[in-house]
Amino acid sequence: MIKDYIRDPFYYETDQMNIINHTHFIKWMEESRIDYLRQIGAPLEELEAQGIVSPVLEVNCQYKNMVRFGDRLKIKIKTTAYNGVKLFLSYSIENERTGVTHAECKSSHCFLDKKNNIISLKKMKPDIHNKFMEQIQ
Amino acid sequence: MIKDYIRDPFYYETDQMNIINHTHFIKWMEESRIDYLRQIGAPLEELEAQGIVSPVLEVNCQYKNMVRFGDRLKIKIKTTAYNGVKLFLSYSIENERTGVTHAECKSSHCFLDKKNNIISLKKMKPDIHNKFMEQIQ
Amino acid sequence: MIKDYIRDPFYYETDQMNIINHTHFIKWMEESRIDYLRQIGAPLEELEAQGIVSPVLEVNCQYKNMVRFGDRLKIKIKTTAYNGVKLFLSYSIENERTGVTHAECKSSHCFLDKKNNIISLKKMKPDIHNKFMEQIQ
Amino acid sequence: MIKDYIRDPFYYETDQMNIINHTHFIKWMEESRIDYLRQIGAPLEELEAQGIVSPVLEVNCQYKNMVRFGDRLKIKIKTTAYNGVKLFLSYSIENERTGVTHAECKSSHCFLDKKNNIISLKKMKPDIHNKFMEQIQ
Repeated sequence: MIKDYIRDPFYYETDQMNIINHTHFIKWMEESRIDYLRQIGAPLEELEAQGIVSPVLEVNCQYKNMVRFGDRLKIKIKTTAYNGVKLFLSYSIENERTGVTHAECKSSHCFLDKKNNIISLKKMKPDIHNKFMEQIQ
Repeated sequence: MIKDYIRDPFYYETDQMNIINHTHFIKWMEESRIDYLRQIGAPLEELEAQGIVSPVLEVNCQYKNMVRFGDRLKIKIKTTAYNGVKLFLSYSIENERTGVTHAECKSSHCFLDKKNNIISLKKMKPDIHNKFMEQIQ
Repeated sequence: MIKDYIRDPFYYETDQMNIINHTHFIKWMEESRIDYLRQIGAPLEELEAQGIVSPVLEVNCQYKNMVRFGDRLKIKIKTTAYNGVKLFLSYSIENERTGVTHAECKSSHCFLDKKNNIISLKKMKPDIHNKFMEQIQ
Repeated sequence: MIKDYIRDPFYYETDQMNIINHTHFIKWMEESRIDYLRQIGAPLEELEAQGIVSPVLEVNCQYKNMVRFGDRLKIKIKTTAYNGVKLFLSYSIENERTGVTHAECKSSHCFLDKKNNIISLKKMKPDIHNKFMEQIQ
């Protein structure tokens, strides 16, 4: 059972519109993704220890309701697709207290070896491959 | 004639993959957008001085080639659509020296009054409305 | 009893030296300070709601041991001095698992009204003044 | 002749106090330091290419006058001391238009080899050592 990622926006993340600046949502996506990878048993550290990096191919974020300092966020991640080579995630950034949706986001990722060649996790790391397969929703 | 936005990535924008972390591209979009708005004669400061804010509705960024510390970036912005209420921009993040494309990004925006109501720039600020109309490509 | 502020450094806080970039320590000071102010009963939100802001006058940070991604930090704050007008805090940034000290930091602060005049909390907000008085160590 | 580092604060660097958040000054110190090292002929890239890194030992920043979005900053760096092993820099962050001093900052640095041992630049890199010696003021 995956636990949602809880995050209190920081004061330095506000801007002079008196809201949290939109650029920080992309950081929260990274934070929650790393937490998610740990939870499903495919921690980034384990991949990096074996010389595998996982760059971001694309991010998308639709901003629905402004976030203010003092809000508490709950981020829900899902693996929407995975084919052994590419990983697709979705993120729902919600208000932990009110349930309001602040943003709906997506990201996609691949996996590279030390020479920056795209690799198939299915072939190279079948144990981690299986972890992602189990998460597809 | 709009000048491209030139930006040298900062050391603190690198990460332990030895590349510039992907989250910073979204910040560069904001930086270059604000520069662009000044250049076309619709500076954010002028809107804010009149109580109008322009939140981001959506961002999208497709990462094509990694950026490294020492690269110099050239960001080209275009107004791809604008209807008096919503503004759509595209960004090409290129290597100023090699011409390689690092990322292709998009953002969309609306305009709000002090009560957070969506406004029509066409009605409320026809002078700035006209500036955006002239930029549509 | 004040609880330490626990913080896992984020991946995007690393840099290409494979450590957490030193600039982020100043952000952690702000994060832990805001948490501390809430705990002692003098939350920033309450001051701001009454038109009082608390700018930083000075920060100092001595870096003792590098922080790496995967470390868990424990930040201990103390009020080292307070005279009704100025507040002095110290921060010990430690490794939650090993006890190693990563940094020893300090900050000082004053309080301003809406016209940016320095105010005496002792006169203007005696209840919050008393909270700080109780914390002096 | 060293050129000052010019920097326009970014919108995402503002906070809800309607000023630039104090944490960003430490980033500007790093930006201007890297620019300075290039100008004096001791670029960070050259050190890193030879396996030498230069961690920050201490930073200090005294905030004098708030910076607002729209201000243009001019940062003046000086080498205040250097002994072959440690480097001490001072930074004056001024308003390029008004001449007002926004902050007075300091940092100190050492140099490490790949095994994280402190090295003497005087012995290991006499050419770069001489560059720093020439800058002492």
